[in-house]
Amino acid sequence: MEEKYRDITLDELTDLCIRRGIVFPSGRIYGGLAGFYDYGPVGVELERNILNDWWKWFVETRDDIYGIDGAIITHPRTWEASGHVESFIDYIVTCTSCGAEYRADHLLEEVGVKIPEYSLETIKSLIENNNVRCPACGGKLSEPRKFNLMFDTQVGPRKSMTAYLRPETAQLIFTNFKNVVFTMGATLPFGIAQIGKAFRNEISPRNFLFRLREFTQMEIEYFVNPEKLNECPYFKEVEELRVNFLSAEEQERGVSEAKSIKLGEAVETGVIKNAWHAYWIGESLRWLWSLGLRPERLRVREHVKTELAHYAVQTFDIEYFFPYMGWKEIEGIANRSDYDLKRHQEYSGEALHIVDNGKTVIPYVIEPSFGLERILLAVLTDSYVREERRTYLRLKPRIAPFKCAVFPLVKRDGLDVKAREIYNQLKKHFRCYYDEDGSIGRRYAKADEIGVPFSITIDGQTLRDDTVTIRFRDTKEQIRERVENLKARLSELIATL
Amino acid sequence: MEEKYRDITLDELTDLCIRRGIVFPSGRIYGGLAGFYDYGPVGVELERNILNDWWKWFVETRDDIYGIDGAIITHPRTWEASGHVESFIDYIVTCTSCGAEYRADHLLEEVGVKIPEYSLETIKSLIENNNVRCPACGGKLSEPRKFNLMFDTQVGPRKSMTAYLRPETAQLIFTNFKNVVFTMGATLPFGIAQIGKAFRNEISPRNFLFRLREFTQMEIEYFVNPEKLNECPYFKEVEELRVNFLSAEEQERGVSEAKSIKLGEAVETGVIKNAWHAYWIGESLRWLWSLGLRPERLRVREHVKTELAHYAVQTFDIEYFFPYMGWKEIEGIANRSDYDLKRHQEYSGEALHIVDNGKTVIPYVIEPSFGLERILLAVLTDSYVREERRTYLRLKPRIAPFKCAVFPLVKRDGLDVKAREIYNQLKKHFRCYYDEDGSIGRRYAKADEIGVPFSITIDGQTLRDDTVTIRFRDTKEQIRERVENLKARLSELIATL
Repeated sequence: MEEKYRDITLDELTDLCIRRGIVFPSGRIYGGLAGFYDYGPVGVELERNILNDWWKWFVETRDDIYGIDGAIITHPRTWEASGHVESFIDYIVTCTSCGAEYRADHLLEEVGVKIPEYSLETIKSLIENNNVRCPACGGKLSEPRKFNLMFDTQVGPRKSMTAYLRPETAQLIFTNFKNVVFTMGATLPFGIAQIGKAFRNEISPRNFLFRLREFTQMEIEYFVNPEKLNECPYFKEVEELRVNFLSAEEQERGVSEAKSIKLGEAVETGVIKNAWHAYWIGESLRWLWSLGLRPERLRVREHVKTELAHYAVQTFDIEYFFPYMGWKEIEGIANRSDYDLKRHQEYSGEALHIVDNGKTVIPYVIEPSFGLERILLAVLTDSYVREERRTYLRLKPRIAPFKCAVFPLVKRDGLDVKAREIYNQLKKHFRCYYDEDGSIGRRYAKADEIGVPFSITIDGQTLRDDTVTIRFRDTKEQIRERVENLKARLSELIATL
Repeated sequence: MEEKYRDITLDELTDLCIRRGIVFPSGRIYGGLAGFYDYGPVGVELERNILNDWWKWFVETRDDIYGIDGAIITHPRTWEASGHVESFIDYIVTCTSCGAEYRADHLLEEVGVKIPEYSLETIKSLIENNNVRCPACGGKLSEPRKFNLMFDTQVGPRKSMTAYLRPETAQLIFTNFKNVVFTMGATLPFGIAQIGKAFRNEISPRNFLFRLREFTQMEIEYFVNPEKLNECPYFKEVEELRVNFLSAEEQERGVSEAKSIKLGEAVETGVIKNAWHAYWIGESLRWLWSLGLRPERLRVREHVKTELAHYAVQTFDIEYFFPYMGWKEIEGIANRSDYDLKRHQEYSGEALHIVDNGKTVIPYVIEPSFGLERILLAVLTDSYVREERRTYLRLKPRIAPFKCAVFPLVKRDGLDVKAREIYNQLKKHFRCYYDEDGSIGRRYAKADEIGVPFSITIDGQTLRDDTVTIRFRDTKEQIRERVENLKARLSELIATL
């Protein structure tokens, strides 16, 4: 199998996405707007399926997680309290000769310079000492300057109040912590989950859907009594899971290959500091595996000290191996401690504690934070198969944009009438489409390319014995099934494949 | 029945929403941000159910509508082309003595002044001639000034490009028109649908969820050959529908009561100018009725000339009668003609036509535009029932946040163990919750208040014969059902009630 994947390029994927209505560059007719994409008719179904699947997995079928859906434009004090106004910055350097602008850390990374500390002084001296020049024209670079990544806007009739477009959904969870505790009677441990857009004015958006200025997060803030970080009742569900793991300590020793360990061991040896953190790593991986992502292309990498966000005690990234850009984060799982709740308590003057076993505590937070578009990019990359005569997406039926396509073998002899009849029945139960144009081979190929798992064909025999063929996308195998059994058979196939 | 509803106030509804986790004022711990709300754990489920129901009704089960999901931050040329930069304005007046700011047309409306034309000059002279003063302090008002309702932000490392947060999702559909036609092979007539947030810097957000600065739209742009505006193959599905109707002509004659007519008649007599427009009015109403909104509280009101947006040929509002604020728009259905596509063609230089029967045309657009939060407010208002000893929401089970609640009669004798077992089975299939705290009466009351249609109680008899009671929210009637039949019975009840 591995052979087939080696040569996938980001260009091929981008081309597929635009050509088949998965995503389009936003504002394309006006030359586009870097870092913004619109989901097309096929992409929006894939997007919805992944989001709904996540909600079902992490909210609907659990008893300990409550959902919310917060506003995008947010009270400015939120971001003062969270530290984003002060610390959510990157460093920019400008070429003094051609005017091009770069994110300083990316530029240093590209020329192989390690950054021991993210400060203006350090970045500045690294650029000088390594004589880093403009990659476009070779010109001299300016001194780095701080750049806050939040988008802001003015609210009200005088436009006198600066508010921010949330750079992460997380803070809306913290500002609603007390609301959820009061209205739902939540007790520790519990989580609050949210799906929604977030916005970051990235200096250089790049790599298609990987680094966007507008993107969708699926986040959980899971609240735990800080004295009970190892009392996780679900830990036994994950302790035997083997994961590819790369610790901060190993990275500092120059190790770059992850090694396989059990999550239980990682907690025992103290590499993961607490059981709740390990649980959320395991539970996240189980969901990612359930999307069909190959386990060998996923690893858990701990943030080294210089990467840690201002709020984090310990953070692990779930990284996916993108053949065209290497290991990259698709989910972060941070231990945010009680940083956020304490800061909001300080800034708002509201008590943000909770009573646990008669004692008042400000809980610690484990935060699994998933990036929808990065996961989507991983899913598309992982499922793209190029064979000699076709390409297809081997998407799990559960998340495929369309579960089936219905084709009359030819558009005559009543086959089209019968096919439409079957289609009209099926579409009540499954997202599907009807296509009668072009050769049957071409219709199969079109369906394969967007990952339709089952193609239903109505042929001459259908009119005689009321059976159709079900063609399987990955194997091209065909079986005959009675029309009356079609719904049940497809339901079973979608649930099990 | 009617008696029960008469005294519902917006305050009661607001209180219910905040107390039971439906919505919270956003940034409440920082004093709130006017016009912004966060959905709580109960509200987010109601929101999701309505959105998913809409998508299923208007996209999934239709062959002629394609979905998209566009970006929120949008290329600025989009809004120059659409006319929003120039025309998406309100007039503000400021009190010269207390500094309060008002939307001029609302102020005139409140003192009973009709506005024949929305121009700076007219507004100015109406305020002067009618000696309109500040309602707060009686002070003199300033001259009106234009105020553009779009939120803007700066994109890029120099923050040098002003982009807008979309004030409507519609334009993303127009800018993606060609993308959808090319990638999906769409042919006239067809529609493009989108669900997403929109943003308007309202001068005075008010009436709880009614006038917000951040809200969710569900929009369809339906494209029709302008020469075939009466060739609607679905028209027969709606022509016999009776709707409460108030035309522009009647309003100009001083009529304010809608009268019941058939949609077929409205087209025949020319009150609705074309069959496609009538079809979308009928189809919209069918969906709104399916949410449980009482037909007598819905009416179709045509925009009078002064209300028409700059792009509209003819517009109808679907209005709901809110007991606390009268008839208000919850959906608009506009005939936008070819205005938008032509403008984008002009501004982008891209050909935005389509070939229909061998001829190149720029289609006309019928636009059903639903406001999620307004519909949610109508649904809550409509379903709120106050009885002597309880209040409940008689929500359709299909959209209820939780389909059922599972209660052990008491928290002992193994009833709680059995109840959890049943709950763990049910939650795989239905959004439900478990509650064992407090008296059974109080648990029923809490479930009623957030519209849980079915409460399942496990009692002593359950342990003997494996039956439970199903209690119906609206009637308080209870029936016994075998545990093994529970899933099937609930599925049937949810589908049919």
